[in-house]
Amino acid sequence: MDQVNEILAAIGQAGKNPDGSYTRISFSPSYFQAVEIVRNKMEELGMQVNQDVAGNIHGVLPGSDPKAKSIIMGSHLDTVPSGGLYDGAYGVAGALEVVRRLKESGVQLRHPIEIYGFNAEESNPVGGTFGSRAITGLVDPHQPGLEEALQSYGRTVQEIMDCQRDFNDAKCYLELHIEQGDHLDDIGVQIGVVRGIVGIVRYKITAIGHSNHAGTTQMKNRRDAMVAMARLIAQADQRCREIDDTLVLTVGTIQCWPDSENVIPGKVECSFEMRHMDAEKTDAMIQAIEEITKTIDTVTFQIEKQIDKGSVRCDKHIMQLIDQAAEEVGASREVMPSGAGHDANPMAHRLPMGMIFVPSKDGLSHCGEEWTAPEDLTRGADVLYRTVQKLDQED
Amino acid sequence: MDQVNEILAAIGQAGKNPDGSYTRISFSPSYFQAVEIVRNKMEELGMQVNQDVAGNIHGVLPGSDPKAKSIIMGSHLDTVPSGGLYDGAYGVAGALEVVRRLKESGVQLRHPIEIYGFNAEESNPVGGTFGSRAITGLVDPHQPGLEEALQSYGRTVQEIMDCQRDFNDAKCYLELHIEQGDHLDDIGVQIGVVRGIVGIVRYKITAIGHSNHAGTTQMKNRRDAMVAMARLIAQADQRCREIDDTLVLTVGTIQCWPDSENVIPGKVECSFEMRHMDAEKTDAMIQAIEEITKTIDTVTFQIEKQIDKGSVRCDKHIMQLIDQAAEEVGASREVMPSGAGHDANPMAHRLPMGMIFVPSKDGLSHCGEEWTAPEDLTRGADVLYRTVQKLDQED
Repeated sequence: MDQVNEILAAIGQAGKNPDGSYTRISFSPSYFQAVEIVRNKMEELGMQVNQDVAGNIHGVLPGSDPKAKSIIMGSHLDTVPSGGLYDGAYGVAGALEVVRRLKESGVQLRHPIEIYGFNAEESNPVGGTFGSRAITGLVDPHQPGLEEALQSYGRTVQEIMDCQRDFNDAKCYLELHIEQGDHLDDIGVQIGVVRGIVGIVRYKITAIGHSNHAGTTQMKNRRDAMVAMARLIAQADQRCREIDDTLVLTVGTIQCWPDSENVIPGKVECSFEMRHMDAEKTDAMIQAIEEITKTIDTVTFQIEKQIDKGSVRCDKHIMQLIDQAAEEVGASREVMPSGAGHDANPMAHRLPMGMIFVPSKDGLSHCGEEWTAPEDLTRGADVLYRTVQKLDQED
Repeated sequence: MDQVNEILAAIGQAGKNPDGSYTRISFSPSYFQAVEIVRNKMEELGMQVNQDVAGNIHGVLPGSDPKAKSIIMGSHLDTVPSGGLYDGAYGVAGALEVVRRLKESGVQLRHPIEIYGFNAEESNPVGGTFGSRAITGLVDPHQPGLEEALQSYGRTVQEIMDCQRDFNDAKCYLELHIEQGDHLDDIGVQIGVVRGIVGIVRYKITAIGHSNHAGTTQMKNRRDAMVAMARLIAQADQRCREIDDTLVLTVGTIQCWPDSENVIPGKVECSFEMRHMDAEKTDAMIQAIEEITKTIDTVTFQIEKQIDKGSVRCDKHIMQLIDQAAEEVGASREVMPSGAGHDANPMAHRLPMGMIFVPSKDGLSHCGEEWTAPEDLTRGADVLYRTVQKLDQED
């Protein structure tokens, strides 16, 4: 009998808000409450448990073959403020359910099974996917603000550097996750066989014009940073749709100065974030943005790259195994990219990686309305379980 | 020998900042410091001085004819935060200079001369042109937040209502002011004969779409409030230039929710302010905005009127006298509207009103860089002095 829904509900006891949303900010008491729930479950399942300075919880179930390398599963236990039950926690619950079924069936696999409950995957002062970057050695010790932010958590940069582990004893990494998008729900497909995680390139773009009186400055003499930025956003959105239908562009933040109803804005600053599996598409997007800015001569634009996370590809062989596992449980499936970032990204820099998606109702995520049907959660755990068994039959 | 520059410099001793700007927020100690400077000057000139609960300082110089009505001059003594020396204070200094010249020349006019140094003309918690609205009975006692704001200044609504004065004993109102725009400086003209103050209509416009994940939501499925608002701003700016070349439209404030780099904005709110002498042009502008919003179907727009200050016209006869006065001092001049609001607006609801503009270097105002040449200040005071003399020769 499947218990992934019960395990997920148990984790959800940590950080549950009265309005039905969940808040488990990284390094917060409610985050560590979730860690304790997972720790207890791991110990109950006979796993060897340890917790690192980065705040990750880690369980190991020994295998029967001393030469066999670990099959690692995991996801994150932190949430955005007022997030949902499923994002992250479902992947940890699914991994725990795999181990539970193994124990229940009395089968010991040849390969050790490891589970990570990662900390700080969501946006936060030390940077997203922090826990998985810590163990894969992908935290830059010189990242601006890192030392101060870690200090506020009672950690040092050196302690985080020391969290890096050796992956020579590991075979692969698997992550089960809700899609957080509307593609599977749209097309009515049950399982997403992820082929990679899109690259994320983020720029800060600033329009610099000249502040002036909103009543006395004629339109023809204005150097209005708001109008200039509006033209850039509208035209860039149009160009994005023309470049590629899986390219996305988001202007998620905006600020203007002096921000007064009766003053022409002299400066407007926005974030422009673009995502695609192929760097050539995000390159084309920023090139298009640069071309648009050259046609707007009332202001000066400053374009500053802030984030450039390359895309990662899932391991083709693992994708085949996931596809077979889904076929065996009679699930409809589709090969698709992940538009969201995941702990699987840093992990893919060290190990062959595979990801399994289940549908998100209406594509909603990072909110209390985030929802996936219980039977979809069970189906995802089934596919993960069978994928692990298939991997165990190999070297 | 002209002393308007000296009187202005004396007022500028109140609220002078180390960076060369001036801060005399309404009802603040530095504002009342300026009031004391003006009070002393008025008393020195033999005026009867009183101060009202609204914070206005008021001086009266008796006339020789008991039946003659007062010629009122004035402007405001408060400034924006980090504003300039000239905005407002110049009009009070110019009026004091007129009285000083009269005293110096030993001439008693037939008409009483009154001077107002108004409080709270700039944006503030009780609303702009507060001091002049108080004496003209144009403060709405039911204005939201008025009672609380007045309470914080130790005033009651009733006390402000009681500041209203009778204007049956007054002939007209004259205000000397810097242009605060670039028109006179642009065309190299010395005196602006103001023909009216533009109407100001301000709307809060909100685009309501749907927040969603910046990575997983395809462009075609987005209800992006930021892109929708950008399209509205860009198109409305274009339409404004087509409707009339003296119409202005300013989007001075913007806020988006949830304001996160990796979330599609679900809501964006802006102020749209339009100004023109003719209400039919601002009406045409909001109609154009409504038409544009109907073409953007990814979001819902809410359009809420917040301010509608009608335009006021200057008295034609006073405009002629100002023009003659300017001609007599050999000044080049141009008839023009005021794009900025002034105390002359409330005053025009009670009395025939005239305004005299002097150039603002590069049109800069509301900043420490605000500047008008000393000879331009003198020329403006000359024109005001002669205008008062011409008015005194009438009934």
